[in-house]
Amino acid sequence: MTAQKDIFLYNCWYVAAWDHELIDGKKLARTILEKPIVLYQGESGKYVALDDRCCHRGAPLSMGRIEGDDIRCMYHGLKYDPTGKCIQIPGQDRIASSLVVKSYPVEERGHLIWVWMGDPELADPDLILDYPPLHDSDWKGLPAYLHYDANWLLIVDNLSDFAHLAFVHTNTLGGSEEYAYTTKPVAIERLERGFRVERWHMNAESPPFHKKVIPDKEARIDRRNIGEMLIPGVFFLQTLFSPAGNGAEKGNLEGSRQYRNCQFMTPETRRTTHFFWNYMHNFDLENSNIALSLRDSLFEGFYEDKAIIEAQQTLLDNDPDFRLRVIAADEALTHFRQVLAKLIKEEKEKKIT
Amino acid sequence: MTAQKDIFLYNCWYVAAWDHELIDGKKLARTILEKPIVLYQGESGKYVALDDRCCHRGAPLSMGRIEGDDIRCMYHGLKYDPTGKCIQIPGQDRIASSLVVKSYPVEERGHLIWVWMGDPELADPDLILDYPPLHDSDWKGLPAYLHYDANWLLIVDNLSDFAHLAFVHTNTLGGSEEYAYTTKPVAIERLERGFRVERWHMNAESPPFHKKVIPDKEARIDRRNIGEMLIPGVFFLQTLFSPAGNGAEKGNLEGSRQYRNCQFMTPETRRTTHFFWNYMHNFDLENSNIALSLRDSLFEGFYEDKAIIEAQQTLLDNDPDFRLRVIAADEALTHFRQVLAKLIKEEKEKKIT
Amino acid sequence: MTAQKDIFLYNCWYVAAWDHELIDGKKLARTILEKPIVLYQGESGKYVALDDRCCHRGAPLSMGRIEGDDIRCMYHGLKYDPTGKCIQIPGQDRIASSLVVKSYPVEERGHLIWVWMGDPELADPDLILDYPPLHDSDWKGLPAYLHYDANWLLIVDNLSDFAHLAFVHTNTLGGSEEYAYTTKPVAIERLERGFRVERWHMNAESPPFHKKVIPDKEARIDRRNIGEMLIPGVFFLQTLFSPAGNGAEKGNLEGSRQYRNCQFMTPETRRTTHFFWNYMHNFDLENSNIALSLRDSLFEGFYEDKAIIEAQQTLLDNDPDFRLRVIAADEALTHFRQVLAKLIKEEKEKKIT
Repeated sequence: MTAQKDIFLYNCWYVAAWDHELIDGKKLARTILEKPIVLYQGESGKYVALDDRCCHRGAPLSMGRIEGDDIRCMYHGLKYDPTGKCIQIPGQDRIASSLVVKSYPVEERGHLIWVWMGDPELADPDLILDYPPLHDSDWKGLPAYLHYDANWLLIVDNLSDFAHLAFVHTNTLGGSEEYAYTTKPVAIERLERGFRVERWHMNAESPPFHKKVIPDKEARIDRRNIGEMLIPGVFFLQTLFSPAGNGAEKGNLEGSRQYRNCQFMTPETRRTTHFFWNYMHNFDLENSNIALSLRDSLFEGFYEDKAIIEAQQTLLDNDPDFRLRVIAADEALTHFRQVLAKLIKEEKEKKIT
Repeated sequence: MTAQKDIFLYNCWYVAAWDHELIDGKKLARTILEKPIVLYQGESGKYVALDDRCCHRGAPLSMGRIEGDDIRCMYHGLKYDPTGKCIQIPGQDRIASSLVVKSYPVEERGHLIWVWMGDPELADPDLILDYPPLHDSDWKGLPAYLHYDANWLLIVDNLSDFAHLAFVHTNTLGGSEEYAYTTKPVAIERLERGFRVERWHMNAESPPFHKKVIPDKEARIDRRNIGEMLIPGVFFLQTLFSPAGNGAEKGNLEGSRQYRNCQFMTPETRRTTHFFWNYMHNFDLENSNIALSLRDSLFEGFYEDKAIIEAQQTLLDNDPDFRLRVIAADEALTHFRQVLAKLIKEEKEKKIT
Repeated sequence: MTAQKDIFLYNCWYVAAWDHELIDGKKLARTILEKPIVLYQGESGKYVALDDRCCHRGAPLSMGRIEGDDIRCMYHGLKYDPTGKCIQIPGQDRIASSLVVKSYPVEERGHLIWVWMGDPELADPDLILDYPPLHDSDWKGLPAYLHYDANWLLIVDNLSDFAHLAFVHTNTLGGSEEYAYTTKPVAIERLERGFRVERWHMNAESPPFHKKVIPDKEARIDRRNIGEMLIPGVFFLQTLFSPAGNGAEKGNLEGSRQYRNCQFMTPETRRTTHFFWNYMHNFDLENSNIALSLRDSLFEGFYEDKAIIEAQQTLLDNDPDFRLRVIAADEALTHFRQVLAKLIKEEKEKKIT
């Protein structure tokens, strides 16, 4: 499969890895937007992202050896510096300037490793969609990863309509089918690069994942979700559980518990996706089992999504002529797809990749 | 793989399942003629066949939930009635009439579930190739299923020349290689929608599968097979074993034992097939081990076919230019392929699918 | 995948098997240059190579039965003689002359079974690249086989630059990375149908595979490799280990130990390869564990090659636009690819396949 330029947005930051995937001198081979790259942390601490293919005979650099901040191909020994320049060939003195591999801008923020797959000139680190709770000791959570056999936009779609909580996640993240019938987004705010949705569920039972980590399991709660989905596929979710009738909707957060959740959908190929997330909480921070329980609950819930989304992908693959039908709840996902298509079109017209 | 209209005949009944595959509220996902469909039995007893793909986001309905005779997609909760009409969307009042999935005519006969993949207007239940022994308490047998990685016509071919019994099934269904040398079809009757073959083997040893279920294992027998192959890929076989020299060929059936065998080849895709069968007997009906022994013998024999037919498919796939050579014994299969090609051509010209 | 005429050279001998693969009446199904063939040894001792596909319904002859020097298809019983002519059809008297399968010239030399996939008229047995040590009791070794998921030329490339010993095989066949820095081919001789390379490494440590089979493990050695690579992908390697400073380079071979190694790369398809080899030694011939140790060491080393070469193949498959960059050490492989391309072009223009 060769890269088809008009299906991805190139000039933006993508999450490529959690930083713990690069500890202990690990060379991580990971495909991003259909480009195989190798990621590593040099001995100086510097992060490096290069095409994972020696320019000589095409051997993978991820089978190579880190030397300082450089990497040596372990087929015939060509050594590359972090800019991708070949700086040594055993047994040969002069090195042609054409002996280079492509290097990619790479930055760490909040334990996430971000890469820029487009024009390096445009790679402004200020554009990184940093998530403050990842740096904030008031919030605790565990980094996690899933691989999807599905296009990343099907996961974006999934997160764009929380009605699916009712049916897909009744026994895990959702709690009841009532959620789909009696609650609606109070607002869908169209953003220039995404959307923002707020949804309340008043006087409800706590959903299973929340019950597992709280003592007052039977207490009724008012639940608020505020989700924000941003280009290229970054999702931030604030979740509030407040004692029912306490007036959380008017600002009284007494007795409430909150979660902060970030999810990052990075295309591996047009039909596979890297999915990173961290589901953080702000209560009982000394109890380390809460983060573990939440990680397991989210894995359980995300596997429910994965089953249905991968089945969707298979059905869509099998029939390219199939046209999806729109329902009222698709407003957010439709807007997101329009924004993305517009940005890809602009990028293509400016030839900025 | 998208459906290619001119390789299948659409306007005829195909076996989609045994009825026991739909008991206990099971939703059966099965691809027929390259269309993924979901089959289920509603709570009223009604059988339903729908496209296995919600019209909203393409999630499979077979991951859904049966509610009465309806089925609910468990992604965002859209509910469909047996005609494929969407009758509920949680959180939405009006439902556009375009929100439908295709439904297929479906009928049960003799524990088989038949579907009609073509024009529903033409789906006359009288056209179903019902097999009377399946309803007749004089005959006992067990329903069985095999999946083939091969085009269904390769299985039709296989059943069109019983000489293969001699070589493929010497130690199971055949009994001796002599069968290929000393016996011939007494007649190949060309039918409008298939063919009929009769073949005798006089004064022979009983074949292994038959020996297993009779007391007089060493007795010589006269063996008659009458096979009928019908569009789209339905095979009925009457088998008679009579004491050798008793005059079975003149109508004396005293001391004979008989079998009735039906086989149904339903294309899953152009290179995979659903294969259903029941091999029934009319003797020692109180001994339930006979049906079990026959089921096991037939599985053994059909696995011999499957090995050679799937190898054939692989070789044919690898070389589309290969032209098969005709021998005298190919008369029946050649006729069947001509009949089928003619029907497909007519259907295509009338655009009746 | 259908055969694409211009990627293989047809008019030359290829190794198809070791003779021990055909003992005890074995029918070997093996694809050579994208043609499935069946190889067997008839009861007279004659070797036979035929298209592995009955001309009647395309069943594989390798599922058939050897009868004398003939083979019978076990689907409908057609029998073929070693020339590929159908000589019997059960139940049919006349056999059309069109009922034939293609047969291929086949010869045994030094326990290797060679086939000629091109024009049989040109199949001169004197063109077989026989390797004398395979017949010579002064040399002992064990025949071995590996399957590669890679084009055979990537393996040819690998053997064309021994610098890879330093990096890929440091701990097995190579011994030190110094090999890549301090040694160079003393000469690369361009041959009409390949190349010849000689490379010395003076006053070095013995490489691990050699240490395992000698008593004086710490003694310094002078090491000489003379490699010869010939069309279509046949590699002969003479290896000499002599006591360091003894003057081996001036012809004094006293105290030296030698190896003779033959490797045969036969394309299975354009992206898979049959790899045959025998690594022979000329010392301590009564100790049968030496051959076993060498076989195991070579497997270990070849698995190191296989890992990197198959990764290379995957990367090249993923990006057909990728252009490899040439370094100084590529002289031999570049010459070999030019010679091969020229021969394929000539063969194509003469239409001699």
